[in-house]
Amino acid sequence: MKRIAVFTSGGDAPGMNAAVRAVVRAATGKGIEVVGIMRGFQGMIEGDMRLLGPRDVANTIQRGGTILLTARSKDFRNPEGRAKAAEQLKKWDIDGVVCVGGDGSFHGAHYLHEEHGIKVVGLPGTIDNDLYGTDYTIGYFTAVDTALDCIDKLRDTGASHERIFVVEVMGRHAGFIALDVGIASGAEEVLIPEHPMPIEEVIQTLKESEAKGKKSSFIIVAEGYPGGGQGVQDAIEGAGFESRLTILGHVQRGGSPKAEDRILASRLGEAAVCALQDGKSDVMLGVTNHEISFTPLADTWEKRKDVNAHLRSCVKTLSV
Amino acid sequence: MKRIAVFTSGGDAPGMNAAVRAVVRAATGKGIEVVGIMRGFQGMIEGDMRLLGPRDVANTIQRGGTILLTARSKDFRNPEGRAKAAEQLKKWDIDGVVCVGGDGSFHGAHYLHEEHGIKVVGLPGTIDNDLYGTDYTIGYFTAVDTALDCIDKLRDTGASHERIFVVEVMGRHAGFIALDVGIASGAEEVLIPEHPMPIEEVIQTLKESEAKGKKSSFIIVAEGYPGGGQGVQDAIEGAGFESRLTILGHVQRGGSPKAEDRILASRLGEAAVCALQDGKSDVMLGVTNHEISFTPLADTWEKRKDVNAHLRSCVKTLSV
Amino acid sequence: MKRIAVFTSGGDAPGMNAAVRAVVRAATGKGIEVVGIMRGFQGMIEGDMRLLGPRDVANTIQRGGTILLTARSKDFRNPEGRAKAAEQLKKWDIDGVVCVGGDGSFHGAHYLHEEHGIKVVGLPGTIDNDLYGTDYTIGYFTAVDTALDCIDKLRDTGASHERIFVVEVMGRHAGFIALDVGIASGAEEVLIPEHPMPIEEVIQTLKESEAKGKKSSFIIVAEGYPGGGQGVQDAIEGAGFESRLTILGHVQRGGSPKAEDRILASRLGEAAVCALQDGKSDVMLGVTNHEISFTPLADTWEKRKDVNAHLRSCVKTLSV
Amino acid sequence: MKRIAVFTSGGDAPGMNAAVRAVVRAATGKGIEVVGIMRGFQGMIEGDMRLLGPRDVANTIQRGGTILLTARSKDFRNPEGRAKAAEQLKKWDIDGVVCVGGDGSFHGAHYLHEEHGIKVVGLPGTIDNDLYGTDYTIGYFTAVDTALDCIDKLRDTGASHERIFVVEVMGRHAGFIALDVGIASGAEEVLIPEHPMPIEEVIQTLKESEAKGKKSSFIIVAEGYPGGGQGVQDAIEGAGFESRLTILGHVQRGGSPKAEDRILASRLGEAAVCALQDGKSDVMLGVTNHEISFTPLADTWEKRKDVNAHLRSCVKTLSV
Repeated sequence: MKRIAVFTSGGDAPGMNAAVRAVVRAATGKGIEVVGIMRGFQGMIEGDMRLLGPRDVANTIQRGGTILLTARSKDFRNPEGRAKAAEQLKKWDIDGVVCVGGDGSFHGAHYLHEEHGIKVVGLPGTIDNDLYGTDYTIGYFTAVDTALDCIDKLRDTGASHERIFVVEVMGRHAGFIALDVGIASGAEEVLIPEHPMPIEEVIQTLKESEAKGKKSSFIIVAEGYPGGGQGVQDAIEGAGFESRLTILGHVQRGGSPKAEDRILASRLGEAAVCALQDGKSDVMLGVTNHEISFTPLADTWEKRKDVNAHLRSCVKTLSV
Repeated sequence: MKRIAVFTSGGDAPGMNAAVRAVVRAATGKGIEVVGIMRGFQGMIEGDMRLLGPRDVANTIQRGGTILLTARSKDFRNPEGRAKAAEQLKKWDIDGVVCVGGDGSFHGAHYLHEEHGIKVVGLPGTIDNDLYGTDYTIGYFTAVDTALDCIDKLRDTGASHERIFVVEVMGRHAGFIALDVGIASGAEEVLIPEHPMPIEEVIQTLKESEAKGKKSSFIIVAEGYPGGGQGVQDAIEGAGFESRLTILGHVQRGGSPKAEDRILASRLGEAAVCALQDGKSDVMLGVTNHEISFTPLADTWEKRKDVNAHLRSCVKTLSV
Repeated sequence: MKRIAVFTSGGDAPGMNAAVRAVVRAATGKGIEVVGIMRGFQGMIEGDMRLLGPRDVANTIQRGGTILLTARSKDFRNPEGRAKAAEQLKKWDIDGVVCVGGDGSFHGAHYLHEEHGIKVVGLPGTIDNDLYGTDYTIGYFTAVDTALDCIDKLRDTGASHERIFVVEVMGRHAGFIALDVGIASGAEEVLIPEHPMPIEEVIQTLKESEAKGKKSSFIIVAEGYPGGGQGVQDAIEGAGFESRLTILGHVQRGGSPKAEDRILASRLGEAAVCALQDGKSDVMLGVTNHEISFTPLADTWEKRKDVNAHLRSCVKTLSV
Repeated sequence: MKRIAVFTSGGDAPGMNAAVRAVVRAATGKGIEVVGIMRGFQGMIEGDMRLLGPRDVANTIQRGGTILLTARSKDFRNPEGRAKAAEQLKKWDIDGVVCVGGDGSFHGAHYLHEEHGIKVVGLPGTIDNDLYGTDYTIGYFTAVDTALDCIDKLRDTGASHERIFVVEVMGRHAGFIALDVGIASGAEEVLIPEHPMPIEEVIQTLKESEAKGKKSSFIIVAEGYPGGGQGVQDAIEGAGFESRLTILGHVQRGGSPKAEDRILASRLGEAAVCALQDGKSDVMLGVTNHEISFTPLADTWEKRKDVNAHLRSCVKTLSV
């Protein structure tokens, strides 16, 4: 193996730069060249690439976002687009590809392997942590701490005004962020798409809290919960509870990555180079019980991992 | 003077606790007792008060929100409510009152002075900085840095995806936060209620940026700008620019106060005790050109201070 | 079981309050009363205790330090002191005890079990992560991110001045913090007590970096590495490399706990109450591969866990 | 004026990049080219320069350190070195120079004006705030908040262990940081070089605090106070008080600049271009009472500004 490529795809996540840096540094140490592909699959099709040396990724480990940029690509959805991409990779003499992204991006990577025999490994880069085959995804820890930091600030106001706050956090299909943030902020309720508690129960809890004299309450809502944060606010206001809604939004995507995300990204980036050297392809690398693990790319969108059951049970127990 | 009272009123702001702490400590050092009134004017009417010693305010200087809580009071809007409040103050042998809040709260404080001859001084406590008679208000510095921190995170995503972000910050009547945050984040446009730039100009700027190849743009909108953040997004999307809207909301009110807010609050709290001792009443204390200044309470809602003209001109100059 | 006690002991760690809160809330939900013992074993001997209800721990989950305080106790080192402590626990009708601390504190807890038949469980509360029987300890994640945040700041100066920085982080007996921080900050070398690299190798690396034109380098030193940060600086200056030494010190102990520490503490606090109900004693609760695990207290000081081997190998690979 | 140069010099300070960015953007908007000089005076002598366009400074406003690097230059201390520097400036057709740094750097800039008739203006870039002619210096606000953040963390431990902490902050010749941080952290004593309180008074205060039952105390020491932090610790331990010493060190120089530093730097950068256009030279630009002010460079090292007297008096008043 003489030259590999790396790119980031889908929504950006803090730690993506740490992953790219690790790929570049690990490969360089083994005498392998690295090509950075700009703007995901779209840049692959257009041949928007450049060689990356160890100095090109210096001082990037602490940066949010992705220096390789990311973009949606309509062209890659049809076989002609993908053929063009494969052609570019051949033109650049690329022997293997590292794709950092979520399951949508892995779908694309899988096609490169299937249709064009290109060796490709995936690294889980998404703040949502909703990927089967890894305990955590790159960006998840930072997103949780960012959301928590915001809620800690809201709590100052909530406590001062004795108010109910509804806070919508990211997670279109998964409640990982909501659950972690809910436990860590001491929220009264956590509403997630996987186990959608009926809104009537939420209202019941608020009534009980009111009866107990609790005047400030937090309800954390994953965006994928039916109706989202807005729906929840509408329902509880309908039941007579005044509340404030905050939608944290894209703030959760950014910021300098926390240590855990940088470490995860660094380990996975290093392991990705080894995996390509070992001839692996069509797999996602993850960390499972502290060790590097491999999962067929298809499993990442066909199988689901669930939130921790103990954590779920703790929400109720700890908000008495 | 043997005993004074202190309370916080209106929206909470980071640094209110530092002000209360300074009042308690400065008064205690002079042999004056301090009574803390809970929940603003409503607690004053209800006699919800307690003596505060120096240890009661230990470890509060770094806390957001207000340990004295704050609430709206309908009762205080009519003379009977205010008479009850005045009665409570007399019952508690209170010789002077320190009110930490915004111009709405100062209105109430002014009535106590006018209708019941109670000595009262105001301290500017609001994140919006929209009070005549002081260069800065308690909470303003923290709100600006909190908003900036969020926008720095959005920028990671904005730069990675080459997107336009519309960000609404607080400021119902004033653009201080928006302008400071706009300069500090390097925003392309800052839209404020005092000098409302026509939306057509904003669209023109976006077109020019596009022509220059600038792909990521930030537009900071004070909530008091006509239409708010939502109105701006609608308008620019109508002109063909895809964008993301983030409404920062109540997050800006909370958090541990920054040094500048704690220092401002500490100085003002200390000076408030001296002012009451000197027989001052019906005035707000502020800091003007680094020195303590006094302004009739009525001026704080009748007069206006404008944003810095040099700063305004810098927005255009620095976003080329 | 009608009443249990909880205390914090040894060095304070961020998340201790979250653990105490979880014990109080989980017990209350089961109809068990909770007594908080102040100042660790010393307060136990002196009977410095008080009942804690759910509201007493409200708004503590985000606070650093420990609301129960902590102190060293000479008296507890001899049997008479421990007999007094046991007497106090009986006087207060305490059926079980939760001890949050490190292995030194668990030693004391073990004696209470051995000598006085008191049911006692330990929760791992130390920033060093050097406890056998749990993947992570309460406070560890926060300490790592605090140290990393400081090093990110030093890097700004290091990069601007093209300098070598030696940074000593906490870890008297273990290199967990140093290794995580080293990977996450992209340090050139990480020196830890468990696998002490000879200082000659460090100097060799600096020479190679210099030859490659790398002008800013970071060397992370655990305080338990022979000679500590000062020893390392002396050695490399002796070899002709100018450098700056920063000893991060106690800053690493404080701060609002990160999400991961709050979650770990919340889970362990809840599980501790269940464990005491189940009749468990003389064990430490931990989290191993995401599930609650139990380890005899004696194992926590007799056995050792090692740092992750993959991580260690990554230091060299990623700093080319 | 067709082309100007900008460089950073002396210790780096957060906000230097914002100043460079403002110079580049403001000049470009007026049709003036900007050359960035690398590594301060040394790079000037060596001709280590490059043209900077608006895109070269994109995404730098939030970065700590200085993208232009900084270094000490022995060569510039003698007339030959300065002659070479002047020659390089002529070779590059530079009509005016902006120097961002402290009084040492301004000394150098002054020589360029005196000896070689080069138009040069200074911008105050130092975390210490010890420059006559401006209310604040670029980097000061960030350094204060960084130090405060560290002390807030130490306080968690100080309060939990009931300990005395001695904290040394930056300020070789000035107590601005120490005083601001002392007030903002609620410290018991603040020791600064300008008004050096005898150590006996400090010990007296500790004895009084002890008598009042205050168990956790903070003493903030500017590094320029006689003996520094170490001297203070030695003295109070000699008087029988156990304490912990923390030297914050270079951490205070780094980090993403706070809003106030970015705004100050942006205004000054813009104004520097206007000043050069107006034919000004040998002056430092500052902000005095919110407006741009001009001060002869020589005044910056010959005159002194003092700390705020009201603030000083507040230390004692507020730590009762």
